[in-house]
Amino acid sequence: MNIEQIQNASLRLRNNKIFELFVVSIIILSALLIGAKTYQIPDGIMQLVKWLDLTVTIIFLFEITIRFIAEENKKRFFHSAWNVFDTLIVVVSLIPIEDSEMALIGRLVRIFRVLRMVSIIPELRMLLNSLVRALPQLGYVLLLMFIIFYIYAAVGATFFAKINPILWGDISISLLTLFRVMTFEDWTDVMYETMDVYPLSWIFYLTFIFLTAFAFLNMVIGIVVNVLEDEHAKERAAKDKADGKISMDDLAAEIRSLKVMLEQQRKD
Amino acid sequence: MNIEQIQNASLRLRNNKIFELFVVSIIILSALLIGAKTYQIPDGIMQLVKWLDLTVTIIFLFEITIRFIAEENKKRFFHSAWNVFDTLIVVVSLIPIEDSEMALIGRLVRIFRVLRMVSIIPELRMLLNSLVRALPQLGYVLLLMFIIFYIYAAVGATFFAKINPILWGDISISLLTLFRVMTFEDWTDVMYETMDVYPLSWIFYLTFIFLTAFAFLNMVIGIVVNVLEDEHAKERAAKDKADGKISMDDLAAEIRSLKVMLEQQRKD
Amino acid sequence: MNIEQIQNASLRLRNNKIFELFVVSIIILSALLIGAKTYQIPDGIMQLVKWLDLTVTIIFLFEITIRFIAEENKKRFFHSAWNVFDTLIVVVSLIPIEDSEMALIGRLVRIFRVLRMVSIIPELRMLLNSLVRALPQLGYVLLLMFIIFYIYAAVGATFFAKINPILWGDISISLLTLFRVMTFEDWTDVMYETMDVYPLSWIFYLTFIFLTAFAFLNMVIGIVVNVLEDEHAKERAAKDKADGKISMDDLAAEIRSLKVMLEQQRKD
Amino acid sequence: MNIEQIQNASLRLRNNKIFELFVVSIIILSALLIGAKTYQIPDGIMQLVKWLDLTVTIIFLFEITIRFIAEENKKRFFHSAWNVFDTLIVVVSLIPIEDSEMALIGRLVRIFRVLRMVSIIPELRMLLNSLVRALPQLGYVLLLMFIIFYIYAAVGATFFAKINPILWGDISISLLTLFRVMTFEDWTDVMYETMDVYPLSWIFYLTFIFLTAFAFLNMVIGIVVNVLEDEHAKERAAKDKADGKISMDDLAAEIRSLKVMLEQQRKD
Repeated sequence: MNIEQIQNASLRLRNNKIFELFVVSIIILSALLIGAKTYQIPDGIMQLVKWLDLTVTIIFLFEITIRFIAEENKKRFFHSAWNVFDTLIVVVSLIPIEDSEMALIGRLVRIFRVLRMVSIIPELRMLLNSLVRALPQLGYVLLLMFIIFYIYAAVGATFFAKINPILWGDISISLLTLFRVMTFEDWTDVMYETMDVYPLSWIFYLTFIFLTAFAFLNMVIGIVVNVLEDEHAKERAAKDKADGKISMDDLAAEIRSLKVMLEQQRKD
Repeated sequence: MNIEQIQNASLRLRNNKIFELFVVSIIILSALLIGAKTYQIPDGIMQLVKWLDLTVTIIFLFEITIRFIAEENKKRFFHSAWNVFDTLIVVVSLIPIEDSEMALIGRLVRIFRVLRMVSIIPELRMLLNSLVRALPQLGYVLLLMFIIFYIYAAVGATFFAKINPILWGDISISLLTLFRVMTFEDWTDVMYETMDVYPLSWIFYLTFIFLTAFAFLNMVIGIVVNVLEDEHAKERAAKDKADGKISMDDLAAEIRSLKVMLEQQRKD
Repeated sequence: MNIEQIQNASLRLRNNKIFELFVVSIIILSALLIGAKTYQIPDGIMQLVKWLDLTVTIIFLFEITIRFIAEENKKRFFHSAWNVFDTLIVVVSLIPIEDSEMALIGRLVRIFRVLRMVSIIPELRMLLNSLVRALPQLGYVLLLMFIIFYIYAAVGATFFAKINPILWGDISISLLTLFRVMTFEDWTDVMYETMDVYPLSWIFYLTFIFLTAFAFLNMVIGIVVNVLEDEHAKERAAKDKADGKISMDDLAAEIRSLKVMLEQQRKD
Repeated sequence: MNIEQIQNASLRLRNNKIFELFVVSIIILSALLIGAKTYQIPDGIMQLVKWLDLTVTIIFLFEITIRFIAEENKKRFFHSAWNVFDTLIVVVSLIPIEDSEMALIGRLVRIFRVLRMVSIIPELRMLLNSLVRALPQLGYVLLLMFIIFYIYAAVGATFFAKINPILWGDISISLLTLFRVMTFEDWTDVMYETMDVYPLSWIFYLTFIFLTAFAFLNMVIGIVVNVLEDEHAKERAAKDKADGKISMDDLAAEIRSLKVMLEQQRKD
């Protein structure tokens, strides 16, 4: 049995739905047990899940090793973001967790372990891919929102700093206060306080809420439109190919061949 | 009058809009009366609605019995999820409600009675069908959100447990606190408390809000896109059929017949 | 000058953008002055706006009288919902407002006056039309949400009534409390209170929030899809007509005429 | 080197991605330093950023001067809204900031400086353009919402003024209270207070929340539909052109040329 055969076998195992379900169950159980440790759980079950969890990690380690060996150009292996991600997850998962539950490192390692789920479920990988692809679109809208926030924070810090230094003492604090206003969290308390000194300051809050809501709306719509466009384009292309559909070009070719026939007829 | 005729009559009755309106009114009245029992309502009206409510249940029982008798294969009857649902509703509705209003069983039975509305209104059945069909799409996004929640809960429990054990003492409690932060419910109180110890902990809350909002957005868009695709595909297919529209393939067939004609002409 | 000419003149006046802007300004000014009566405003301006407001109402009265006279079948006039709406607005606007500002009737009359804006601005009429048209779609989703609310309210009233009778004492009060939970208004306070007695009651709140959010989402998507479909259908039809576009059918006709030519050639 | 060459060079510089990144970094750094002035930052870095910031402003000044000189018709230069915007930004950025950090003018000038980002990043200009273009669509919906708000504020001020004059004393105050209710900010406190006097006043709040939520939804959908329509129309036109796609018209032309050939054959 050579490397390629092992690799194929491991790929088959990885794509097997029942195996996927088993691994995901172990990971979720393992994650839930940590959260539920305050409730009474028999030690036996705890130990069993721990051992199954370790088995899963070893399967992951085995699978990624096979993939690494099979790759001819060892350097190119780490050019794929997913290979780097998978390797990192496996390496971190192998770090032994100390017994003392409060140990910082132990807890942070456990956090990373849950990411093995992204590694094993192809739908989650697709979801993460689509999130990453949407990021540049988000960038400019976030920049515009930062500008809106900055302008309002500067105005707020200038006029309201003396009224309540805890909320408006500084531009950086004002930015946080404005984020709070945007989430509607006790924003009227913030407003009524400044309205006692500047009765027209409700204009400041209302225009801010409208502007940020509008910019956010624009972002959502922008992403929806782009996603819909991409989906449509893909779907259309896929459908035309699958159908073996007769296109305009096919029709034009048919007509052209008709012409050739007529030409020949003429010459005859 | 044989079974089939009775069945047709009962189906006609069920699809009758006026009958539907009557049944729905009785169900709503019956539901509202329970809620309004603290206000003064004449005993006569109460009794009337109770009797009408019972009549509706008996009509339901009659209708489902007819359906069951008409089905040749008795086992297959319970393969349809809707048949099981309807039978369950009727059976539960027939349980007599005790007089003592606080009786737990009596109240829980009344809850199920309102589901007779889903049984009788076809639009609600369609709505419920579409909800059930959208569930698998939701599954993976909820899984991704669980991973985000878990990671933040683990970090939160590690760093903030000593600051406020009621909110962060445990991963399971931290998950609930994070859900609260996601709904913007007094989230600044939670944040200000931890900012006293870790002044940069606002990064924790803001990135969490952005990530969950973004994942939620992705879910909404994903569902919108899928629903739109389905609707479009159906609509296009329906339209093409209804129009008796001349398709590309028809055109190609026409051109091919032209060629045949030319070929024959040549031979002549 | 006969009735028809006057009617045309009044229709022209009504559709005149500058006249529309003038009338809208008067209505808004009149509305704002009532709101701003606590601030100091010169009596002269107040009186001027009052007279202009009366003039606008008289123009409305004149216009609707002309429309009524021009209508041949007087009964059919009130079959149009808009005619009834316009007449009502004018009649209510003509009720004299008493001096005493707190008089209930005077205030309620003033409320109706602002609806003259809907009467004069065609875009607002279109908006209102689209709102009314979307209502039946909303109906069934609201019914489904009522069922969800009712079930949770019944469960809530059964289990939590003893914990806090102010929030859960009754099904009708529970419905209001659940609406509050849906708007995320201090919902954690409601939850923590019941979690002291039933530690697992967070399941009640979280499933409720998910179900109502999902039903709401479904409603939004349903409306978006329907609106988009309508828009697309209209747009496509309009475009095809406007372009004098060559359709499949035109092409098929062309090819058929080709065939006829070939047939004739053959006979020759 | 004549004006045109200089202008081309400055345009090239402006469109250069690395230059854009450099300028944006300086602007963000400059903005962040103001916000972070309470933290300890070495004076040297502060001075460096200040000088770089000044350099950026001078580059802006140089670029806009070139543009102005190149424009033949000096009056037409200020007809472009973007030219006016850019000039304003540069002029305001050149106002020297006083040393005293709390000086009102100094702070307001700094606010405007961040808008230089919109001036330099073409994507932000496009975003701002699309925001401005969506404004008229928003206008009528906001008017409709104002009417809904006004009616509810008038009713609220009439009935609830005696219960809590701080929230309902006046129509203008009632409008602010209703905006607060729309954002779900402690709206139940407002409701419970009036329900003590008018037990059915929950109808007032619930219908208000439904109406405003529905009008808002309509606005969002309206904008989505319009944006999608525009995008689709553009995309379709662009694609058809790019593909050099064979259109229906091309096919019709082909068939017509076939006919001509047949006609000629016949004559022969």
